[in-house]
Amino acid sequence: MANEIGISFLGMGNVGEKVVGTLLERAETFHKQIGASLLLRHVAVKDPTRARSVDLPEGVLTGDASEVLNDPSVDIVVELIGGDGDAGDYVRQALTAGKHVVSANKELIAKAGPELFDLARQNQAALRFEASVGGGIPVISPLLRDLPANHIVAIRAIINGTTNFILTNMAQQGDSFEEALAQAQELGYAEPDPTNDVDGHDAAFKIAIMAGLAFGVSVSPETVATEGIRSLAPQDFLYARELGYVIKLLAIAERNEAGVLVRVHPALLPESEPLARVDGVQNAAQIKGDLAGTLTFQGAGAGASPTTSAVLADVLEIARSLAAGTQPTWDPGVWRNGETLGLGALETRYYLRMTVLDQPGVLAQIAKVLGEAGVSIAAVDQREADHERGTAELALMTHRARELAVTDALSTLRSLPEVHAVDTMLRVEAAT
Amino acid sequence: MANEIGISFLGMGNVGEKVVGTLLERAETFHKQIGASLLLRHVAVKDPTRARSVDLPEGVLTGDASEVLNDPSVDIVVELIGGDGDAGDYVRQALTAGKHVVSANKELIAKAGPELFDLARQNQAALRFEASVGGGIPVISPLLRDLPANHIVAIRAIINGTTNFILTNMAQQGDSFEEALAQAQELGYAEPDPTNDVDGHDAAFKIAIMAGLAFGVSVSPETVATEGIRSLAPQDFLYARELGYVIKLLAIAERNEAGVLVRVHPALLPESEPLARVDGVQNAAQIKGDLAGTLTFQGAGAGASPTTSAVLADVLEIARSLAAGTQPTWDPGVWRNGETLGLGALETRYYLRMTVLDQPGVLAQIAKVLGEAGVSIAAVDQREADHERGTAELALMTHRARELAVTDALSTLRSLPEVHAVDTMLRVEAAT
Repeated sequence: MANEIGISFLGMGNVGEKVVGTLLERAETFHKQIGASLLLRHVAVKDPTRARSVDLPEGVLTGDASEVLNDPSVDIVVELIGGDGDAGDYVRQALTAGKHVVSANKELIAKAGPELFDLARQNQAALRFEASVGGGIPVISPLLRDLPANHIVAIRAIINGTTNFILTNMAQQGDSFEEALAQAQELGYAEPDPTNDVDGHDAAFKIAIMAGLAFGVSVSPETVATEGIRSLAPQDFLYARELGYVIKLLAIAERNEAGVLVRVHPALLPESEPLARVDGVQNAAQIKGDLAGTLTFQGAGAGASPTTSAVLADVLEIARSLAAGTQPTWDPGVWRNGETLGLGALETRYYLRMTVLDQPGVLAQIAKVLGEAGVSIAAVDQREADHERGTAELALMTHRARELAVTDALSTLRSLPEVHAVDTMLRVEAAT
Repeated sequence: MANEIGISFLGMGNVGEKVVGTLLERAETFHKQIGASLLLRHVAVKDPTRARSVDLPEGVLTGDASEVLNDPSVDIVVELIGGDGDAGDYVRQALTAGKHVVSANKELIAKAGPELFDLARQNQAALRFEASVGGGIPVISPLLRDLPANHIVAIRAIINGTTNFILTNMAQQGDSFEEALAQAQELGYAEPDPTNDVDGHDAAFKIAIMAGLAFGVSVSPETVATEGIRSLAPQDFLYARELGYVIKLLAIAERNEAGVLVRVHPALLPESEPLARVDGVQNAAQIKGDLAGTLTFQGAGAGASPTTSAVLADVLEIARSLAAGTQPTWDPGVWRNGETLGLGALETRYYLRMTVLDQPGVLAQIAKVLGEAGVSIAAVDQREADHERGTAELALMTHRARELAVTDALSTLRSLPEVHAVDTMLRVEAAT
């Protein structure tokens, strides 16, 4: 049983300052909870001369990560650097030294999870990463601890606040993508270079982690079928609304007899679905288990305070074990290497918006091409004829069809002189 | 490290059959997960001759609970009897014998939690009870494990499926309470004697448990301010909708400087709130922490399969510890005995519906009584005059007022000859 538990931090940005500040501020409460003292040993940062908003005890701040990694009095290392460069090296060294690690690093866990879990196992160390997905919303621990008796059927999540903010603005204010992005950047919800968020990469990291936990398969983030939200236009939101849908960037992982399909793309979601109401920077994850049914977890998916809540939950859980003299365990299992299915395996309804020549017979021609590919039309909306250019806009909803049939048909349609552009193709995500 | 872990059941109704069946069916998967075998030792039931839907191994079924309690090869006891009679005695005996206990018994935990937690501590046994609140929705474990760094500010929950089904029907179909109850009974969502559900007692047990976990205070279920849904009429749902609200039976626990206030009553909730969309037999709990913000957990709050998910999560967590040779711990802490606040401490907006004499000056008189008590009117709707009786119906929304001022004013109003009845008084639950 340990009376004193040493904790050190690697990296201290906004989140780190809040975590360290809270740890110092609530030291007494945490002591009571775990039955031991959490002693802050080091905060290792790139630039120790930079001013910090948190008052650190003398001698804690260092520019040298090896001080953390070589100090035997450090039991828990909190990695808040991010990315899979230095952060990965440090986490490997910490685990090899038998230190328990708490990480908020979605990229590292998504890319190197299985290897790091092995390393943790070999060194009897715990590697916890609740903060890597969903900010303050518990999503890792429900999968590992609350639903272990279930066969997980599917996960469906809105796990990127930046894109959800942009899509909400486009839907509610009729903004263009560029306008909504600019507003998100002004408010600090989007980075100056928004690629990682708006092109779906951030969500792909997170759903890869969740798929690993849910299905025990190692999903490399590059193999996640990923589409961003740049090509959406305000009228897509209008058509969607008329059809009874909202547009959300969904991260989806599902298992059927053929295998596991993991994907990130904007999708049409029925207005009646709980996820359809998740607006602005809110996040939500739906986990469907064969026993529990569909569970929805909603809350703030980012921000210093929510992330602090998740990081400290992991820290306190490890500390509780150490204080009680038991081995902290947190084993996400061995993830099989396995091919995941491609989007070609998908079958759903599709929303298509195209710019076509405004003349008789065009719709018939399009219907014929779709029909020959085995895609039948459920609803059509034609409008906003551009008289100068002689074009009209067509929005179509198909019946259930195979993705391959739709992409085949689209490539034929694109070759028709009457079809100026297929502007948008969105998958419909059915009700759970 | 244990290779074999003995498990026995006390009670086997619908839920028990599903739990035992799943345990037998998924034995191999669970063995892999925990690294040991879960061996079913006994299923003790009142009437061992009754036919069961699950095929039990020879010799497992017994009519004698003491076989379970006295068998040293039983490591985990699952109590699915319910109530605080026999179930309480058996749980006490099991804990005293150092057995770990998993219980789905809200009444027992709500009434005797602190005593049982002490007993568990003294005997180094774990007492887990995830299934006691919210069916398959994790609510106990988020409070204990996912949010330990937070100061919990408030919990707001829809945790009774029967009443939520009835209220949803009344809102969507305009049914009377009696009609909606009859339909719930037909569908098996309500008991022949629905008292426990419709009068709020079931919800009171559950919120008492959550308040204990969130605030560390022992809340005896009798001290929870509890009002049921019997007095609601179809027109209340119409007025609510016009005002932008829905009516839900909410279980609320909140802490302010003065203390902890725990209550169960139907309330007006803004339509924009996530809980306002939780319909039918669905349940949802909102937990507001100072770091994590407001988290919403939604899903099936009852039923054999969801409850099985929760019971087995607890069983597997204990088994994992035993298999690893560590002490299963699950300590809900010591709950202080302390007075909780009464409804008199509340300050909110109020919705009032009354039947009044249809003559000039009545509204002015009512406004005067309310005003003298310090209650000011925000909106009035007068309609549905009953010409035969000479009465009209008045629906009022007040500005923020003290509960005591409102109840004072109502008792004065009831004494006026012009006021035939104050039919409904509902508190407004503000947006989070």
